[in-house]
Amino acid sequence: MNGAQALIRTLVGSGVDVCFSNPGTSEMHFVAALDDVPEMRGILTLFEGVATGAADGYARMAGRPAATLLHLGPGLGNGLANLHNARRARTPILNVVGDHARTHKRLDAPLESDIDAVAGTFSRWVRRSLSPEVVGADAADAVAAARTAPGGIATLVLPADVSWEEGAAVAGPVRVRPPSRVAPELVEEAAAALRSGEPAVLFLGGDAVGEEGLLAAAKVAEGAGARLMSETFPARMARGAGLPDVPRLPYPPEMAISALAGTRHLVLVGATAPVHFFAYPGVPGQPVPEDCEVHVLAEPGEDAVAALQALAEVAAPHVRPQPLEPERPEIPTGELDGRSLSAVVGALLPEGAILVDEALTSGVGLQEMTAGAPRHDWLSLTGGAIGDGLPMAAGAAVAAPGRPVVGIQADGSAMYTISALWTYAREQLDVTTVVCDNGSYAILEGELTRVGADGEGTRAAQLLELGSPDLDFVALARGMGVPGTRATTAEELADQLRRALAEPGPHLIDAVLPRRK
Amino acid sequence: MNGAQALIRTLVGSGVDVCFSNPGTSEMHFVAALDDVPEMRGILTLFEGVATGAADGYARMAGRPAATLLHLGPGLGNGLANLHNARRARTPILNVVGDHARTHKRLDAPLESDIDAVAGTFSRWVRRSLSPEVVGADAADAVAAARTAPGGIATLVLPADVSWEEGAAVAGPVRVRPPSRVAPELVEEAAAALRSGEPAVLFLGGDAVGEEGLLAAAKVAEGAGARLMSETFPARMARGAGLPDVPRLPYPPEMAISALAGTRHLVLVGATAPVHFFAYPGVPGQPVPEDCEVHVLAEPGEDAVAALQALAEVAAPHVRPQPLEPERPEIPTGELDGRSLSAVVGALLPEGAILVDEALTSGVGLQEMTAGAPRHDWLSLTGGAIGDGLPMAAGAAVAAPGRPVVGIQADGSAMYTISALWTYAREQLDVTTVVCDNGSYAILEGELTRVGADGEGTRAAQLLELGSPDLDFVALARGMGVPGTRATTAEELADQLRRALAEPGPHLIDAVLPRRK
Repeated sequence: MNGAQALIRTLVGSGVDVCFSNPGTSEMHFVAALDDVPEMRGILTLFEGVATGAADGYARMAGRPAATLLHLGPGLGNGLANLHNARRARTPILNVVGDHARTHKRLDAPLESDIDAVAGTFSRWVRRSLSPEVVGADAADAVAAARTAPGGIATLVLPADVSWEEGAAVAGPVRVRPPSRVAPELVEEAAAALRSGEPAVLFLGGDAVGEEGLLAAAKVAEGAGARLMSETFPARMARGAGLPDVPRLPYPPEMAISALAGTRHLVLVGATAPVHFFAYPGVPGQPVPEDCEVHVLAEPGEDAVAALQALAEVAAPHVRPQPLEPERPEIPTGELDGRSLSAVVGALLPEGAILVDEALTSGVGLQEMTAGAPRHDWLSLTGGAIGDGLPMAAGAAVAAPGRPVVGIQADGSAMYTISALWTYAREQLDVTTVVCDNGSYAILEGELTRVGADGEGTRAAQLLELGSPDLDFVALARGMGVPGTRATTAEELADQLRRALAEPGPHLIDAVLPRRK
Repeated sequence: MNGAQALIRTLVGSGVDVCFSNPGTSEMHFVAALDDVPEMRGILTLFEGVATGAADGYARMAGRPAATLLHLGPGLGNGLANLHNARRARTPILNVVGDHARTHKRLDAPLESDIDAVAGTFSRWVRRSLSPEVVGADAADAVAAARTAPGGIATLVLPADVSWEEGAAVAGPVRVRPPSRVAPELVEEAAAALRSGEPAVLFLGGDAVGEEGLLAAAKVAEGAGARLMSETFPARMARGAGLPDVPRLPYPPEMAISALAGTRHLVLVGATAPVHFFAYPGVPGQPVPEDCEVHVLAEPGEDAVAALQALAEVAAPHVRPQPLEPERPEIPTGELDGRSLSAVVGALLPEGAILVDEALTSGVGLQEMTAGAPRHDWLSLTGGAIGDGLPMAAGAAVAAPGRPVVGIQADGSAMYTISALWTYAREQLDVTTVVCDNGSYAILEGELTRVGADGEGTRAAQLLELGSPDLDFVALARGMGVPGTRATTAEELADQLRRALAEPGPHLIDAVLPRRK
């Protein structure tokens, strides 16, 4: 058995059986070995950022890692932005990065670069496999590292000759440690804070915004009179009728500050204390009031659900919280804007949908309009590196083949990883993409003002607008084998979305929004 | 004056007046400052890999660096692959990477990551600007670092508040040291090797494959009976009628070994000793024969042209080499394949063209067919990180507005940075892109065999083919505002190429090549 075969068999034996790939010469034995291990599903992407973003979306839905197959330092670099997002989401991912053969390493061949240094910036675990004899064990360690709560990125650098030489052996299967429980005194501290009668917020993230966590949190909130709030961009949030409606901390600093104003106790459950995405002149960096006491009930990686359930036992033993009733907005008519787009999505979102949100400014109202929709999961852009939406949707669709994926996708961000559409078509993934086509980096137009730059000049403005020429997303979709339509009114969007959701496989709808002046 | 204004004015004062940009919030003051310094041309790209590749192509043609404007660690990551190629080309580039404000850095905001570690892998110079008072001086140092021979990448990390605070000052202009001359005894050593009468090769790279270098090298070769050869992927090579025809060392190891077989003296001029791109089982890593003596006449960064001229004085004082006569292939008819495609290009390549070669396997014959074409420059993929071709062409067109740019572009590689087409359209760049559309990663099919993997299985083969669905490059071009046509015969290609070259602005031709079986 050669190194590649042992590696793939080890991965499969430890529950990693999907590999989002963009291989090159140094990965050819890995590719060849896919024919020997049919349990591993290799999925081709046309760009590494699609592979890593898909792995992010996959693990958020599957609860276990996918592998990626990347080509040396540049391939890893192309995957970096979405690995950054995955790190912020605490997504388990196993990167296999092919490298030069050990004999070739010192020759400084053209593709030579410092893979390990780059990998170290987003990985919790990096190792270079040094011989075929150990590559199986290395792979098992990598899976264990990726899967240990709260989940993270493990990067295994695989020299080509370690891959092709014989003498390798399968290792594992891996045993994953369950997440640690929080100490009882932390539950008591949180309960005491809630009993104080002072304004308190339970601030939720990670597993605490899954179904069980939310139900326990709602019990605590109702029993103790606390408010619930989630981090701004949770990796995966359970939503819809039958669950409590938990607002997310707003993104704009002034709104975040206002959302937490007056809070005296902030109880963190699976989340870290919030900070603003960016600094702005004259604005404090964090929205938490200065006189607010921060209590860490459960850190990311600890069992937040168990902690919430324990807290509910203490703080609200007999409470039965009122979940949301089913409620959908009316399908609007007339002009298509961010709000009517959100209403159409809220009106039509199917049961069990996975909503991938990279709408940015165009998503105003989307949370509110979908709150009472049938039960669904919501995946956010966690790390702010735009271009995760289209790939994440691919991974989510692979992880949950029975569930419709709806991507609400800003236009500028879509262009970073547009070739994800081709993978949708190749794999016939059930992904409906609604492009929020406002013809600009609208979020930056707002940010230009917010940072205090006047932005009155035309040269600056040109760097923020996507017209001249307009992007034609229907043509782009067709170019990659995805059927596309264009909607210019709310009725058209509703009609096209209904049809796209009724038919399996990928669809793209170019939702033309008003241009900023 | 705020930091951003001082930075931009310093760059302009030191000859850096084009900035390929993909900004985010942390770069908004830089963007705003473009309105204050009209001498700096900001060019928007839709993806950082386009910005960095364009900066590579720009400097190869302009002989001085462009700046890039990138958004924190993920933006730098997206630009990494083409910065890798630029590093291998020894291209001067000045990256400005926006980062969180100094006050925000310790808060671990979602976009926080280790920018410096990533930058260190491809930069010869990295600095974080610590205050508005020093940012001008930092920028001047960065330009000096980038421009010092042989050219390299300087990365300046710019905290948002250093950008927006007042109190900054312009620095420079920068004085660039001319490249060092080689010591006379090295010229003597090379001359002695050539006098030995044993088979010798002058192995050329860097400036030695520019016009002056080639003419001096041809003199030496003719006078001393040595052969000329260039590195496999020179950053920029002068070619065409009136210049000597210098073959490039072939890419496939067996052909490279054969090209250098019997050589007893390899004289390096602006190039390093060749190594194979990859290791292969049972093949030595370098094509240089074991009994060949390697002489380093000029290292990269030393004045290779002066060294060749000095060598010519000693070794061939009275020789007048025969340059190539103008000669073009006939325009072929019938089937379109790599060879007939190359013949069409050779027949029609205009005077003064810049040929950007990312054809990979489809470029077989392209060198030969263009050797006697009118004088042109040839830009290669230097670092093996595919996806440089389309962006490089953009940069070359910006640097040399009077010259037609012809990109010969493999299909799979085109998809990495396809949004470069939008920048062609936005800036109305005179770039004609010929997509070598064979529907596969053909180079990898060959590599799969070459590494000794049998590749008979269908699952491996699926990871190397781009069909199902076929990419429609004409639709993709239309989606980004570039007019496109499709050629399925040599006549059609000739016809479409002639028309594209006759009309200013961008054009794309999808040249449909035979599918592999």
